[in-house]
Amino acid sequence: MSSIITLTTDFSLNDAYVSAMKGVILGINPEAKLVDICHTIKPQNILQAAFILSTAYEYFPEGTIHLIVVDPGVGTYRKAVILKTPQAYFIAPDNGVLSYVIRDFDNKSAVNNELQKQAEFSSGLEAISITRSEFWRSPVSPTFHGRDIFAPVAAHLSLGLPFSEFGEKITSLTVLPYPRPYRKPDGSLVGHIIHIDNFGNLITDIKSSDLSELNVTINIADRFISGLSKTYADGNSLIALIGSSGYLEISVYGDSASDFLHAHIGDEVTVNFNEK
Amino acid sequence: MSSIITLTTDFSLNDAYVSAMKGVILGINPEAKLVDICHTIKPQNILQAAFILSTAYEYFPEGTIHLIVVDPGVGTYRKAVILKTPQAYFIAPDNGVLSYVIRDFDNKSAVNNELQKQAEFSSGLEAISITRSEFWRSPVSPTFHGRDIFAPVAAHLSLGLPFSEFGEKITSLTVLPYPRPYRKPDGSLVGHIIHIDNFGNLITDIKSSDLSELNVTINIADRFISGLSKTYADGNSLIALIGSSGYLEISVYGDSASDFLHAHIGDEVTVNFNEK
Amino acid sequence: MSSIITLTTDFSLNDAYVSAMKGVILGINPEAKLVDICHTIKPQNILQAAFILSTAYEYFPEGTIHLIVVDPGVGTYRKAVILKTPQAYFIAPDNGVLSYVIRDFDNKSAVNNELQKQAEFSSGLEAISITRSEFWRSPVSPTFHGRDIFAPVAAHLSLGLPFSEFGEKITSLTVLPYPRPYRKPDGSLVGHIIHIDNFGNLITDIKSSDLSELNVTINIADRFISGLSKTYADGNSLIALIGSSGYLEISVYGDSASDFLHAHIGDEVTVNFNEK
Repeated sequence: MSSIITLTTDFSLNDAYVSAMKGVILGINPEAKLVDICHTIKPQNILQAAFILSTAYEYFPEGTIHLIVVDPGVGTYRKAVILKTPQAYFIAPDNGVLSYVIRDFDNKSAVNNELQKQAEFSSGLEAISITRSEFWRSPVSPTFHGRDIFAPVAAHLSLGLPFSEFGEKITSLTVLPYPRPYRKPDGSLVGHIIHIDNFGNLITDIKSSDLSELNVTINIADRFISGLSKTYADGNSLIALIGSSGYLEISVYGDSASDFLHAHIGDEVTVNFNEK
Repeated sequence: MSSIITLTTDFSLNDAYVSAMKGVILGINPEAKLVDICHTIKPQNILQAAFILSTAYEYFPEGTIHLIVVDPGVGTYRKAVILKTPQAYFIAPDNGVLSYVIRDFDNKSAVNNELQKQAEFSSGLEAISITRSEFWRSPVSPTFHGRDIFAPVAAHLSLGLPFSEFGEKITSLTVLPYPRPYRKPDGSLVGHIIHIDNFGNLITDIKSSDLSELNVTINIADRFISGLSKTYADGNSLIALIGSSGYLEISVYGDSASDFLHAHIGDEVTVNFNEK
Repeated sequence: MSSIITLTTDFSLNDAYVSAMKGVILGINPEAKLVDICHTIKPQNILQAAFILSTAYEYFPEGTIHLIVVDPGVGTYRKAVILKTPQAYFIAPDNGVLSYVIRDFDNKSAVNNELQKQAEFSSGLEAISITRSEFWRSPVSPTFHGRDIFAPVAAHLSLGLPFSEFGEKITSLTVLPYPRPYRKPDGSLVGHIIHIDNFGNLITDIKSSDLSELNVTINIADRFISGLSKTYADGNSLIALIGSSGYLEISVYGDSASDFLHAHIGDEVTVNFNEK
């Protein structure tokens, strides 16, 4: 069991909410190593948190505990859960914030244009519903389960308690309908911008494994990009490349592609596979 | 003695000032565990820092050392102090930044609409004026006591030195006239917005203990709210509830109450106790 | 060998890039102590990163490893390097981001208005080009050497490996032409604003050691300031003082000098030495 606990929230760093969670964790496990993933998730943007988490978790050592608190339904009927993968633990509200993690292990859960659904996951994944209140702070604030339920559960888990101690086994989790690329009749692949990073790079939902060949022309906002570059500094204008998380990215060297193209999250990006 | 040291400043995360303090601390106590509470206090806003600190400190384990550097008078006659409560140590300039901490232990210091004053505190609290320069960095920059006085004192304290070693005992500290709710002749209670969090929730200075009953109607900005909700998701428009720090809060589900009501810090909120 | 690793990047805290680097480090050295210096460097602003780093590194204990990833040329021919000073290690792309560190040890490298150049450094400094890929993550993303090369090298170095293990010795590093004050025929000294901090203080490139005497009049934006103050609260309008990093600073008490003077980075500040 690693004693690393990561934190991902929409609390921002302007309030003391994140530090209250850290105080609670350190009160239970003074040896816990706390690492912030991101606290500037747009308020209550579950899908953004799900994506950001998915670009970070696999780089942490085995046994790391990931705590995710983006929780618009806090205090209501939504479950609090622990998901165990072969590599890590995820403690979160059951509201879809683990959608990308589940997808990484279980392609069956990749839903397209469907309403939110319960995904029954298969091999390698286990989950419990957090119900045993003896591990919680008392009393529990109905508006801050992050501090009163999730944080103490993470701390006790980091001390080595089996994850099954914290509640009852469940066999499905909520998965949100995140955007997925689709194929047009002419064989081209249509994806979407799912994230814009601090440099203005446009990250799409097209993974390198979706590209059967690299001889492609990419169309975004009436612009055409021929072929894939290797690095940001390969050209001096608009380029496309496979980014560090394995997604197709649109970039402008030394500038913001987002500003340059007036691009937004959700915009379409089309990959045309060139004839040989 | 815990080796946890928290940091609260108005330095922002855009400069290296916070990290310089951390470097100094780790040079003296390599085992110190550093936790950021908040570094985006509005420049020189002592009362905001006092409030933010008050929403976090009680969640840290016993013996935690809280370092607060919001210090417009740095280098002048204002004292540098250590306040010891039964639970924690607070190292700060004596400019009122500990007002809420002192209030939590000593209601006599709760002043209303008075000028800044020295509050003589009573049972459970001890304080010293930091005067023994052998624990400081040398030379001391007159503009950065955070790095050259407060940080090294916090580090030495975290190594187990008695807090009385760092200077002379004092029996009063500066308390600022923070807003306090008052009662009108008709029995209603008038409070103020003292904080707006990242979600746009309006946190008032009315504590749950101020509400003799929960059958209330709340008036803010020409709007009336009947009764208290339990969770943010209880209703789908404007609600009032007791937030996670025990203060009455005004919230809009999935939206910013601050934007919705064009509300600002200092605005009044009135609680009317309904007849039975 | 200290196990402290500091991080300075232009990744912002809105993405998970910084945490991915931290995960990689902790996977190799679980005992590494990670300290953020700054992650809000303006995208690809090498000189800003160089300056911010220079205001922090000397406050960390001996043996600290400083990791700096502001890297517009990532994946191209630019070298990745480790610079060893008597006090610390610096792991960075060889693009000038270590210019101020090198200057602190080797005044010969202080170039003025020259193009970027290779500075051969002298006594006390050693450097290697990072070439031994067995210490890297595999495969290496051409767009994220921070995660795949710099972070694992920092982690292995923190475990005690000699720095010469990571590649071949080199004898020069890239130094950028950062602004330097110059002397006019009338004996006055002309410097520049090189940084504006969170309080709006204007930090210049004039060091206290450049001031042969303190009986000066300072001219900025058609304003004249007589003499140097000791603290921010010394006067109630525009003042000049020697700031906590040893640079001449222009400040307005309780306000932003940057706003007050409409000042920008690069603006000139003239010091006139008064006749006795």
